[in-house]
Amino acid sequence: MYKQTIVIRADLKMGKGKIAAQSSHASLSAYKKVSKNHPDIAKAWEQEGQMKVVLKVQSEEQLFDFFQKAKDAGIPAELIRDAGHTQIDPGTVTCFAAGPWNEKELDSVFGGLKLL
Amino acid sequence: MYKQTIVIRADLKMGKGKIAAQSSHASLSAYKKVSKNHPDIAKAWEQEGQMKVVLKVQSEEQLFDFFQKAKDAGIPAELIRDAGHTQIDPGTVTCFAAGPWNEKELDSVFGGLKLL
Repeated sequence: MYKQTIVIRADLKMGKGKIAAQSSHASLSAYKKVSKNHPDIAKAWEQEGQMKVVLKVQSEEQLFDFFQKAKDAGIPAELIRDAGHTQIDPGTVTCFAAGPWNEKELDSVFGGLKLL
Repeated sequence: MYKQTIVIRADLKMGKGKIAAQSSHASLSAYKKVSKNHPDIAKAWEQEGQMKVVLKVQSEEQLFDFFQKAKDAGIPAELIRDAGHTQIDPGTVTCFAAGPWNEKELDSVFGGLKLL
């Protein structure tokens, strides 16, 4: 089984629509990376129904920490900086998406985080 | 300018994480459709920064109504049914994404809807 994990900063107090847009941005960016470098995984994930899990962290530091952990584990991940048109300052790092990737490998990195 | 419009049912009382996952699903599905049939538009949208707007409707009927309006206007759109693992019943229609597409054409269809 494959899934995609999206990790969002809960400390920014973004509204639901903002979170949805940032999450979609991360999801698409990471998908494109996997699709390019691991097309078999991207395809399998789509055929399985595009499973996604959205988790939360409480600070920029924690977001960077888990982003680095994903990188260290060899999981493709894409960090999103907001353009800052609304709600938060330009350039603020809001979230990242990791995968689609092997579910167990994702869980070994992100298993300690709670659902948003 | 191009953008992608995501329309979400606010009547389902989905949590933030659920909304983020459904929105990401819709965004990616519609992007893939546009990327296949209108690759120039998909590419331009990405180069412009992947602008996304997340709007809300208050019922399934209203969601279908606006989905049909997008289709009638020739705008590629993808409807999402939830697999129902969490929070809501399997097969529930939760949202759709339209585009990326010309901003003005999207506004002419969705201009009356409010931000989520």
